[in-house]
Amino acid sequence: MGKGGMSVDDDVEQQNMAAWLVGLNTLKIQPFNLPSLGPHDVRIKMKAVGICGSDVHYLKTLRCADFIVKEPMVIGHECAGIIEEVGSQVKTLVPGDRVAIEPGISCWRCDHCKLGRYNLCPDMKFFATPPVHGSLANQIVHPADLCFKLPENVSLEEGAMCEPLSVGVHACRRANIGPETNVLIMGAGPIGLVTMLSARAFGAPRIVVVDVDDHRLSVAKSLGADDIVKVSTNIQDVAEEVKQIHNVLGAGVDVTFDCAGFNKTMTTALTATQPGGKVCLVGMGHSEMTVPLTPAAAREVDVVGIFRYKNTWPLCLEFLRSGKIDVKPLITHRFGFSQKEVEEAFETSARGGNAIKVMFNL
Amino acid sequence: MGKGGMSVDDDVEQQNMAAWLVGLNTLKIQPFNLPSLGPHDVRIKMKAVGICGSDVHYLKTLRCADFIVKEPMVIGHECAGIIEEVGSQVKTLVPGDRVAIEPGISCWRCDHCKLGRYNLCPDMKFFATPPVHGSLANQIVHPADLCFKLPENVSLEEGAMCEPLSVGVHACRRANIGPETNVLIMGAGPIGLVTMLSARAFGAPRIVVVDVDDHRLSVAKSLGADDIVKVSTNIQDVAEEVKQIHNVLGAGVDVTFDCAGFNKTMTTALTATQPGGKVCLVGMGHSEMTVPLTPAAAREVDVVGIFRYKNTWPLCLEFLRSGKIDVKPLITHRFGFSQKEVEEAFETSARGGNAIKVMFNL
Amino acid sequence: MGKGGMSVDDDVEQQNMAAWLVGLNTLKIQPFNLPSLGPHDVRIKMKAVGICGSDVHYLKTLRCADFIVKEPMVIGHECAGIIEEVGSQVKTLVPGDRVAIEPGISCWRCDHCKLGRYNLCPDMKFFATPPVHGSLANQIVHPADLCFKLPENVSLEEGAMCEPLSVGVHACRRANIGPETNVLIMGAGPIGLVTMLSARAFGAPRIVVVDVDDHRLSVAKSLGADDIVKVSTNIQDVAEEVKQIHNVLGAGVDVTFDCAGFNKTMTTALTATQPGGKVCLVGMGHSEMTVPLTPAAAREVDVVGIFRYKNTWPLCLEFLRSGKIDVKPLITHRFGFSQKEVEEAFETSARGGNAIKVMFNL
Amino acid sequence: MGKGGMSVDDDVEQQNMAAWLVGLNTLKIQPFNLPSLGPHDVRIKMKAVGICGSDVHYLKTLRCADFIVKEPMVIGHECAGIIEEVGSQVKTLVPGDRVAIEPGISCWRCDHCKLGRYNLCPDMKFFATPPVHGSLANQIVHPADLCFKLPENVSLEEGAMCEPLSVGVHACRRANIGPETNVLIMGAGPIGLVTMLSARAFGAPRIVVVDVDDHRLSVAKSLGADDIVKVSTNIQDVAEEVKQIHNVLGAGVDVTFDCAGFNKTMTTALTATQPGGKVCLVGMGHSEMTVPLTPAAAREVDVVGIFRYKNTWPLCLEFLRSGKIDVKPLITHRFGFSQKEVEEAFETSARGGNAIKVMFNL
Repeated sequence: MGKGGMSVDDDVEQQNMAAWLVGLNTLKIQPFNLPSLGPHDVRIKMKAVGICGSDVHYLKTLRCADFIVKEPMVIGHECAGIIEEVGSQVKTLVPGDRVAIEPGISCWRCDHCKLGRYNLCPDMKFFATPPVHGSLANQIVHPADLCFKLPENVSLEEGAMCEPLSVGVHACRRANIGPETNVLIMGAGPIGLVTMLSARAFGAPRIVVVDVDDHRLSVAKSLGADDIVKVSTNIQDVAEEVKQIHNVLGAGVDVTFDCAGFNKTMTTALTATQPGGKVCLVGMGHSEMTVPLTPAAAREVDVVGIFRYKNTWPLCLEFLRSGKIDVKPLITHRFGFSQKEVEEAFETSARGGNAIKVMFNL
Repeated sequence: MGKGGMSVDDDVEQQNMAAWLVGLNTLKIQPFNLPSLGPHDVRIKMKAVGICGSDVHYLKTLRCADFIVKEPMVIGHECAGIIEEVGSQVKTLVPGDRVAIEPGISCWRCDHCKLGRYNLCPDMKFFATPPVHGSLANQIVHPADLCFKLPENVSLEEGAMCEPLSVGVHACRRANIGPETNVLIMGAGPIGLVTMLSARAFGAPRIVVVDVDDHRLSVAKSLGADDIVKVSTNIQDVAEEVKQIHNVLGAGVDVTFDCAGFNKTMTTALTATQPGGKVCLVGMGHSEMTVPLTPAAAREVDVVGIFRYKNTWPLCLEFLRSGKIDVKPLITHRFGFSQKEVEEAFETSARGGNAIKVMFNL
Repeated sequence: MGKGGMSVDDDVEQQNMAAWLVGLNTLKIQPFNLPSLGPHDVRIKMKAVGICGSDVHYLKTLRCADFIVKEPMVIGHECAGIIEEVGSQVKTLVPGDRVAIEPGISCWRCDHCKLGRYNLCPDMKFFATPPVHGSLANQIVHPADLCFKLPENVSLEEGAMCEPLSVGVHACRRANIGPETNVLIMGAGPIGLVTMLSARAFGAPRIVVVDVDDHRLSVAKSLGADDIVKVSTNIQDVAEEVKQIHNVLGAGVDVTFDCAGFNKTMTTALTATQPGGKVCLVGMGHSEMTVPLTPAAAREVDVVGIFRYKNTWPLCLEFLRSGKIDVKPLITHRFGFSQKEVEEAFETSARGGNAIKVMFNL
Repeated sequence: MGKGGMSVDDDVEQQNMAAWLVGLNTLKIQPFNLPSLGPHDVRIKMKAVGICGSDVHYLKTLRCADFIVKEPMVIGHECAGIIEEVGSQVKTLVPGDRVAIEPGISCWRCDHCKLGRYNLCPDMKFFATPPVHGSLANQIVHPADLCFKLPENVSLEEGAMCEPLSVGVHACRRANIGPETNVLIMGAGPIGLVTMLSARAFGAPRIVVVDVDDHRLSVAKSLGADDIVKVSTNIQDVAEEVKQIHNVLGAGVDVTFDCAGFNKTMTTALTATQPGGKVCLVGMGHSEMTVPLTPAAAREVDVVGIFRYKNTWPLCLEFLRSGKIDVKPLITHRFGFSQKEVEEAFETSARGGNAIKVMFNL
């Protein structure tokens, strides 16, 4: 990764600059050693990269779930760019193509991969999940089959949004959302919002969104929630709040997405969902939960979880192309790719407030 | 139901005697008013009735889950008998037919019934679930379509066992057990055993059974478990015990049935099951559970529950006919239908010990 | 049913007038004997009744598939009306409610009913399928659970359209249509059109409609087809036409609905659909077909059929309420309920031409 | 592939001998150029290779379906052997391991591969499917993840039988065979037999096998068919024969496997299968079929096809290990790997007669 003698004025090297997580709360723009281009790979000039909650989590704690940052690591995994060079065997893309990028490379040799659930591959190499480098860089090399050409009417920023949107799409698939599924969403943060947009695009006729925060709820409403319900953080209020939810919905809840992951949100989810329904746990909160699992099971309310996503990019792009989903309102802040702006951008994302998605334009 | 002046010598009335739950810990054999025979009904002379844990629970507490015994109620719901009379429209059965009896009458007008999940019917009339009377009686009237003719080589006692067996069969269907599903069963009580027998009949290649009790484990082994693992009640031991389970199984756990329903059994279930697998909560223990739901969800381990069963009698009878399941070893005690024997039988069932299924021969 | 002495001025009797199929090409408005109102029934004043192809078929041939009209029979089965009286046990409806009516009463005692596929019930009693009377009458008695309250913004005529629409909805469910399914529809007749509208409502991103007739194709286009392809009736043209279909679609065909049922349409369907896709045979043409079934099977293109529908009314009404489907343009002709108008209406429907749906207003 | 100067005494070269299809009816044992060993590959000393109908077809016609032999090609694809060398990244196998070999290498970059249906991959490289060489050779190089270690009690010959058995297993999965599925099998040739054995292993309670040949039927009976029915080749007899089939089965047919693929067998299949059932077309006969597809579709009898198989080796080996399937009786003839024996072996397989599976021991 020879960095010796590099100069900021050196154009060639500038193409290989990346945002490195080098220590607690410390990001540095530094040169990045591009891997060589394999026959099935493409080289992409990066144009748009979003900041994800997990990126912020790594920055603030150097870990996320069981993954620990032990060596400096390039950060970032929500991205889109323009093809600059294609490998000898690549037939589906040409230089100049604008592409959205799926960040995980699975092994295709394990049972999970072969059985069509490659998201569970134990050997997955996923951007910015240690020890694998991420994609907040001037350019990257990536397998061509993980680069999806953008429709003409979809921008690079929207392309980068396919990554968070994929979480909502995968959750909707796992919960089998369709035109007969009345949906409840616990939590109106970024994940709650992409799940809501996805549920709508899958045809959900009625969607109620619940949160503790007025601003978030108003955003949910403006993005298409049929109804919103403000709740407390007090678990004693569940019964009363479930009644309220049922009232505004005027029908049974078929599927609840818990996009927060607290004891209270999961308790509400399990209680509010009707017999034969599903609760999908999307948000990762406490590891251990204290919840009324037994009565839910006795009403055959199933609990399904998600891990990342699989085969979501083509559908996300179709949703964006057709206008069934508009992700542009989710992009609230934009930054350039300088040391100062990278620091500001992550600070903005970490602060939360009215920031939903913070995006780099490279 | 006042039938004052009835005499024990009166043959006609004797046909209508039933075991009434008349108060805490108090069962009385008393006359039972047979409903009239509708055009689609049959009248059945009862021959075999088993005692279920819920029957004992009602006797000891006058309640079970949300159901409360407010009026005297005939008890019992695991039963088989011989057809004595058929309604005018009944074409599938004739007097003399030996039948196993499905105990729940659903409404067939609600969405659940129409959608093929009649077990979730909110208007279900289910034997010995207040205020509906049960079937521990000389004879009963029941819809013909809930009476299933026994194959020649299946006894009336085995017919009565279709009811508990149905719980295992329904659990296996919900968990999608087949010839590629390695199974872990938490708890070797009656429910654990019928689930084990069902999983084997659905083709599960490897089944490991876990319990705290040596005798129960030895019964599980003798009934077909490939391996057994003795565990503690200490939740600190989960990690070590999961290692042991994986060792004896020599493969990943695809489905775990929690047939106990404690924090520890569910914690073991969620931890031991491999990514993409399922945990089926069969045993009803604590209402609220404290369990590592989030990491399980993040491995896409789904939690599914069951409520009773649906469409299970034909399959149970096929399993018994073909010998894929042998329920006879589960019947450990037999009693006649006298006041004294009814009391003894329930006491035997309540004591547990080496009693698995206590059966009345009427 | 002899009601001699009845007079047209007699108000009571006028309520019981129905359109009887009394012989080849002969319909007569005559008195109709209302069944008595059971505890779970409702009495409905009929307001809108559509004419179906099968009604015309019965009129012209006195038969349809295996069903033969041997006795005079009231015709009609696409209908909506206003509740006039409810049975003692009916809790979901009150007089004055506007309802769409599902025409088939299944037995709820056979395996098919219990397993959730009541449309396959061998004892189904279905309007205007001999020997069961239909619903082109001033009023009828029907089970309350087959009467679905109309949303405020849905008219009675639209309510009657739920019946033909249900065919499309059931076909889409059987073919598992969703936001990733590119759809090809063979035939732009009434069934092709309701299937197209349903596929769109289920989220199909791209729909191509094929027909031999310019007018029908232009209707399909105006109702939402993304593309239309005019074809010949010459089976030699299949290869060329499939190329054309693939060209306009610009992607693989995931599901083809054959809404015509000819050798040629089915050959095109089997050839055009991509590996792993489905062909759904909706239109009933020739009984015996000569088609390239083997190469389709060797690409794992499945062929699924439909028989009527099940559980479709709530979804149809939701599609109408939300505006995801607009059936009003399908209603091309309207008639009153007099002898003369009934004859004219059936003649209009039989003639075809630019008639799509012919509707009675009663 | 430099063959110049090779000598039969040269040990090194002898390791690379293979059976080449060099022209119509002409097989020659000649040197075979081993590809180099990649990091994820293994080198296998071949021990057992079976002859498939498609191998014979290529020999007799130089084509099979759309595939045409244009250059000399090594034949054979049903095989098992012993690992001799493993690539640098292979962790699951070591030299000396006995393995059964899955013959198709898919691309893992196309939609089909990613969606879990790799058998439909358009870029599949499959043994002995032109222009890809087969495996009737002293040794081969193959990806490690397509080599499955044999359980101790499974022989190399049985390992080679995993390939034909996989066809039956895949068919049973596509038709969703389980303990409630009554099965009809049209045709008692090798494919009919492996399908029968698979259906039984998936739990089918009743299996009836139909053929025109007494010897084949007696083999089917001896291998486990519950009943056999001899039929004619006259299509007029279908109605009568279906009656006979229903009589011996004594229940509805849930799934029919057509393992012959003629108009008559498919007509019987479509007619005999009950409403809501499935017909699985396994045998490849006439491309175009004349069959009563419309009435079958109107009873919601689905037609599903198969193309090869996917993810079947582990299950096949489990069936062989547990004894749920015994393939040994299917191996009727054995030959060594000399020019003369290869010719004799193919002649034996082509003759049919009482030969089911002809196997080479190398």
